[in-house]
Amino acid sequence: MSSSTPAVPHGAAPTEPPKTCKVILADTIAKKMLSEVQTTLSAIQLPRRPTLSAFLANSDPHAYQYAEWSKKTCEEQGFSFNLIKVDKESLEEAIIAANNDPSVDGILVYYPIWPANQSHQDRYIQETVSLAKDVEGLCHTHLFNMYHNIRFLDPPTNLKKSILPCTPLAIVKALEHLQIYNPILAYGNRLYGKTITVINRSEVNGRPLAALLANDGATVYSVDITGVQLFTRGSGIKALRHQVVDKPDLTLEDVLPLSDVVIGGVPTEKFKVPTELLREGAVCINFSSFRNFDGAAVKEKASIYVPSIGKVTIAVLLRNLVRLISNSPRQEGTSDDAQKAREGAFTDD
Amino acid sequence: MSSSTPAVPHGAAPTEPPKTCKVILADTIAKKMLSEVQTTLSAIQLPRRPTLSAFLANSDPHAYQYAEWSKKTCEEQGFSFNLIKVDKESLEEAIIAANNDPSVDGILVYYPIWPANQSHQDRYIQETVSLAKDVEGLCHTHLFNMYHNIRFLDPPTNLKKSILPCTPLAIVKALEHLQIYNPILAYGNRLYGKTITVINRSEVNGRPLAALLANDGATVYSVDITGVQLFTRGSGIKALRHQVVDKPDLTLEDVLPLSDVVIGGVPTEKFKVPTELLREGAVCINFSSFRNFDGAAVKEKASIYVPSIGKVTIAVLLRNLVRLISNSPRQEGTSDDAQKAREGAFTDD
Repeated sequence: MSSSTPAVPHGAAPTEPPKTCKVILADTIAKKMLSEVQTTLSAIQLPRRPTLSAFLANSDPHAYQYAEWSKKTCEEQGFSFNLIKVDKESLEEAIIAANNDPSVDGILVYYPIWPANQSHQDRYIQETVSLAKDVEGLCHTHLFNMYHNIRFLDPPTNLKKSILPCTPLAIVKALEHLQIYNPILAYGNRLYGKTITVINRSEVNGRPLAALLANDGATVYSVDITGVQLFTRGSGIKALRHQVVDKPDLTLEDVLPLSDVVIGGVPTEKFKVPTELLREGAVCINFSSFRNFDGAAVKEKASIYVPSIGKVTIAVLLRNLVRLISNSPRQEGTSDDAQKAREGAFTDD
Repeated sequence: MSSSTPAVPHGAAPTEPPKTCKVILADTIAKKMLSEVQTTLSAIQLPRRPTLSAFLANSDPHAYQYAEWSKKTCEEQGFSFNLIKVDKESLEEAIIAANNDPSVDGILVYYPIWPANQSHQDRYIQETVSLAKDVEGLCHTHLFNMYHNIRFLDPPTNLKKSILPCTPLAIVKALEHLQIYNPILAYGNRLYGKTITVINRSEVNGRPLAALLANDGATVYSVDITGVQLFTRGSGIKALRHQVVDKPDLTLEDVLPLSDVVIGGVPTEKFKVPTELLREGAVCINFSSFRNFDGAAVKEKASIYVPSIGKVTIAVLLRNLVRLISNSPRQEGTSDDAQKAREGAFTDD
C-alpha cells in the first residue's frame, strides 16, 4: 500500500485540548505526608500519644482558626494537642514549665504576640522554647542551620535532622509533589535551573523560604514592600549556601516574567499578583490566608495552581513533632528496631 | 535546655557541594527503552524474528556507521536486520519488492540520497515506502499526523498509534527520562511552561522535533541559518496543535538566555553553542554527530547534559518496528492475548 491513500482522513484531530491548568489542593499533598507520618510514628514505637502544647497569647482570629484546625488534625492523627490560652505576661513561665514537662514532646507558640515589638519580645519567646521541643524550627540553632544549609544537629554522625519552619517546609514539600524538584539531579541541587519569585520576606515565612529554595539550587527573587533581593548559590551554584544581594533596580513587574514559579504570601486582601505578567505555564502557589492570585485568571495562564498551603503546614507540624521525638536521646526500653526507625525517620529530606 | 547553648558548633557546614551538572549518557535511556521493547515483543507473540530491511544508496560514512550500529543492536535484541546496498537507480524497485515481501516488517532508507535534490527525489523515495512498513515515520500520512498532533491512524477506534520519526522521538524520550516532561500535568501538555531552543530545522530532524515539543505544550524557538521561528500552541496553549511564526528580529543569542532546554543538531564540527549565553542550570542535549556543546564548559553551567542521542534513536527504531507489527491486521493464529498486547503496545505515548 502506498501512503498516497492515507489510512486516516486528514483533519481528524482531537476534538478538544486537555485542560491546561492543573489545580492541586493542599489536601492531596497533606494526605500523602500524614500517611508517611503515621508509618514513621508506628515504627518508632512511642509508648504514649505524642503530645504538642500550643500557646495562644494573642487575639489574632487567624491564629485561633489555625489552632482549631491544628487541634482537629492532631487528634484525628492520634496526637494530643493541648491548646493553652495564657496572657502575655505568664507566657514565658508557661513555656519553661512545658520545657521541663517530660510528657510534652513539642511546643508551639502563635505569633505575633507583641506586634509592635516582634523583633525583640517575640524573638525572646522563640529562644525560650527548648531546642529539643522547638517543633516550629524557630530557635536560633535551627534558624542558623537552615540559613547555613546545615541539615543535621549532630555532625559528623548526622542522624539528627535539624528542624525547618513549618510553612516554608510545607512549600518545599509542595514543590517536590509538583515535581519542580527534579529527582534526576543530586540531592541538594534539585531546583538548579529554576527561577522562583517569593512575594513576602517576613522572618517567619518569606525569608526562610527564599533561603531554603536558593540552598536547593534555585535562583530566587525575594520581593516585599522594601524592594527585591536575589538569593542564589552563585554562578554554577558552586557556593555551599545561598548568598543575598539587593536588587534596587528590579521590581515585582521585572521578575514575574522571568519566574518558573511564583509564590505569594502577602497577608492582605488588596494584593493580587498581576496575572498578565506571569510567564506562560508558570507554577503559582499561594500561602497567604488571603488569595494573592486571581483564581479565574491564573487558571488561564498557569500550568499548576496551588490556592492554599495551610493543610500541608499542619502535616509538616506533625512531621516535625515526630522528628523531634526521633531526635530525642534513647530511652530505657526502646527496642533496637524502634531506635533504628528513629535514626532513619524521614531520611528523604 | 535553652538554644543559647547550641547543639551544633556553628559553621559545621557540608564540606563540599554536590556535583552541579548531571551527565546522562544515551546508553542509560536506550537500555530502559530496549527492555520495554523486549517485554512488548514477547507479549505480541510474533511467530518469527521481526525483520528490518535497511537500504543504503549513498556513500555517507555517518550513514554507514549508523547502519552498522543499528545492525549490531538489532541482532543483539533478536531482530533480523538486512543491510541492502543498492545504487540510486535500483532503489525504488528494491523498496517496492520489500513493500510486497511479507517477511519484511519494516523498511529503513538512509538519506540523503540525492543531496542536490532532496526535496524532490528523496521525498519521492520516502513516499515509495509502504505506510505499513514506514519505521521512520517519513510517509506523508505519518508526517501529517505528527504536524497536526493526531496520535492515531485509526480514529475513532484509536488502537493504532501513528509512527513518529526516530531522532525527534528519541529526544522526546530523553526529555521524559530527564523529567522535563512533568507527569503531574495532563498527557499532551507536559511541557507547558518550558522554553526550548532547537538548533537545526531540517525536515528530517529539527522541524519535526520543534513541532512535537510545541504540540506537547512547550514554547519552542527553532533556529537555523535562515533565522528563528517560534513554535507554540498559542497563549494558554489553547490551540489543538502548534502554530509557527517567523521571528526576524530574534537571533540565537537572544533566545539562548530564555531557554530551559537547549537542543543542538548542527551537522558541523565548527559550530558550538556559546556557553556564556546559556541560562544557569539549563538542560543541554546534543543530537548532532558532531559535538555542538563545549563539554568542559557546559558542565560548569548546565544542570543536565546529554552529549549524544544515537543509541536512543536506534532503540526508538526497534520500538517503531514493534509498533508497526502491533498495528498490522490480525493474522490467523494470533491468540487473543497477543492481539490484546498488540492493541496495548507502548500506550505510554
